[in-house]
Amino acid sequence: MSLQAMDSSHVALVSLKLEVGLFDTYRCDRTINLGLSLANMSKALKCANNDDTCMLKYEENEGDSIIFTFADPKRDKTQDVTVKMMDIDSEHLGIPEQDYAVVCEMPAGEFQKTCKDLSTFSDSLNITATKAGIVFTGKGDIGSSVVTYSPSSNTDDESEAVTLEVKEPVNVNFSIKYMNQFTKATALSDRVRLSLCNDVPVVVEYPIEENGFLRFYLAPKIDDEENME
Amino acid sequence: MSLQAMDSSHVALVSLKLEVGLFDTYRCDRTINLGLSLANMSKALKCANNDDTCMLKYEENEGDSIIFTFADPKRDKTQDVTVKMMDIDSEHLGIPEQDYAVVCEMPAGEFQKTCKDLSTFSDSLNITATKAGIVFTGKGDIGSSVVTYSPSSNTDDESEAVTLEVKEPVNVNFSIKYMNQFTKATALSDRVRLSLCNDVPVVVEYPIEENGFLRFYLAPKIDDEENME
Amino acid sequence: MSLQAMDSSHVALVSLKLEVGLFDTYRCDRTINLGLSLANMSKALKCANNDDTCMLKYEENEGDSIIFTFADPKRDKTQDVTVKMMDIDSEHLGIPEQDYAVVCEMPAGEFQKTCKDLSTFSDSLNITATKAGIVFTGKGDIGSSVVTYSPSSNTDDESEAVTLEVKEPVNVNFSIKYMNQFTKATALSDRVRLSLCNDVPVVVEYPIEENGFLRFYLAPKIDDEENME
Repeated sequence: MSLQAMDSSHVALVSLKLEVGLFDTYRCDRTINLGLSLANMSKALKCANNDDTCMLKYEENEGDSIIFTFADPKRDKTQDVTVKMMDIDSEHLGIPEQDYAVVCEMPAGEFQKTCKDLSTFSDSLNITATKAGIVFTGKGDIGSSVVTYSPSSNTDDESEAVTLEVKEPVNVNFSIKYMNQFTKATALSDRVRLSLCNDVPVVVEYPIEENGFLRFYLAPKIDDEENME
Repeated sequence: MSLQAMDSSHVALVSLKLEVGLFDTYRCDRTINLGLSLANMSKALKCANNDDTCMLKYEENEGDSIIFTFADPKRDKTQDVTVKMMDIDSEHLGIPEQDYAVVCEMPAGEFQKTCKDLSTFSDSLNITATKAGIVFTGKGDIGSSVVTYSPSSNTDDESEAVTLEVKEPVNVNFSIKYMNQFTKATALSDRVRLSLCNDVPVVVEYPIEENGFLRFYLAPKIDDEENME
Repeated sequence: MSLQAMDSSHVALVSLKLEVGLFDTYRCDRTINLGLSLANMSKALKCANNDDTCMLKYEENEGDSIIFTFADPKRDKTQDVTVKMMDIDSEHLGIPEQDYAVVCEMPAGEFQKTCKDLSTFSDSLNITATKAGIVFTGKGDIGSSVVTYSPSSNTDDESEAVTLEVKEPVNVNFSIKYMNQFTKATALSDRVRLSLCNDVPVVVEYPIEENGFLRFYLAPKIDDEENME
């Protein structure tokens, strides 16, 4: 099951993939595009309790709704949430494969904290990566903050490591506001992977166990010269 | 000690009863009606610490105030809160006994969650109860949510059971906004009891240990045809 | 290292002292006054993680900025936060030594709770202290609250004790709003010390381990007759 959504200014794209292995039961007779308002889908999902099982159902002959059925295994309780679908213009986008100059993996919480810290100083996040390390910079009127990670030498605790694969150096600028939105996914995963290339959208990826991912694509800022060095 | 209050639109009534057994010391020379602003009483009660003892005092000859005295048994500290009384027009209401067609007991947290979930879809809560189970429905423009409880067959954990006594089926509609207000009492009690009859106010009752209760009475919605099936 | 700030109406003064003993490394070639916006300094300090080491650096020949360097000992990460300085008119104030008529030490949480409780009834806090005890009073239109502490007789738990040194009785009024601001420092210290004299600013002091303190000075309210008894 794949989900895509784009922000209204077409700067950021989110792509969620849940592979069949994540589901207890999965049946899909033919590939189909379903349009749902994210706000309404969110209302439906908030009805779930932690231990509930969740069933999604769409029947082609039964109108324009998707049914989420939450069942509480502890008691004889079910909750059917019916959400009306919406027309969406766009097809599911095929995203071309891309070779990235830099791939950095780090603790998701570290990335979240760094974006949050820098956003108090600047609207723009500069990321510079070389074999020596990855540097996040935010500069503004009241001062600046520069966060430097060297690739972790001690691999005692893998989940805490910062790893860096560098084919060639990159130096790119992004809107911090979007990054802060993306890092709300930190609860999903211990680790985050940043895939970077000059002049190409960054990919911020949170793996979902071993059967899926949540990916954010964000176009670089190009007209923001005062934040470039 | 009994407390009554009615909302300004006279749709809901709250009735609190604290029996003598709940108090360490209780002296009441004659039955008396005292009027207090709920907001002011709330300010007084918020001064209490968890382990404080609380004494309420009203002396007929000492003017128009009630004194709450909180004492901290751990140190030599007392806090006297004096709250001015207000004139209230109404007498304490006698609420007639009523035979209810359906009495349902369930975990207070379940009822709270169900009301909260349904309020994201609808302003109206439809409750339908038969011997087969009790169904809570909220329908709105973006979709609907239907929560179904079958009477619990396994009584392993009594505090988790949903029990249902049905003399005859009921089908009634209420304002969810009020229900959400009532369920703020969930912290008081593990269990809630709903007493229902067609065309009669529902009673939402939270027992207080074995010596009292907090009851909410709410008149059904009758002009809300789009929410009836 | 000493820090001073005054509120815009010049009613309250805050004074922070961090002695050399609190620092792992400390070098100061000559006494110097540095002006920083508290808001900007707060932004810098929020970048720190709990286990980070923090280094403050100011070089006289390198312009108008202070650099906070946070280093995470667990990984190869540093964060340099540069904050621009501001011109401040005032010199560091010398605060004259004062003999206080009453010195009261109590749990910081108790003082915070008492100020908060009384602020629901009044804008003014009356403090009356005699050898018999210390009394905090807030009186307003809806009622009043009077909190009385007798000096602790049992010294089983020193951190819970209320101690009172009284040379002569005091009876003073303060703005509760400021007191509530001061008590945000409660997290710093288990204990608070109040130093009181009639017609003189109160000192609300939170000790910082054994090598510093955070002190608030607040001028008494003098024109507020309706709150005096």
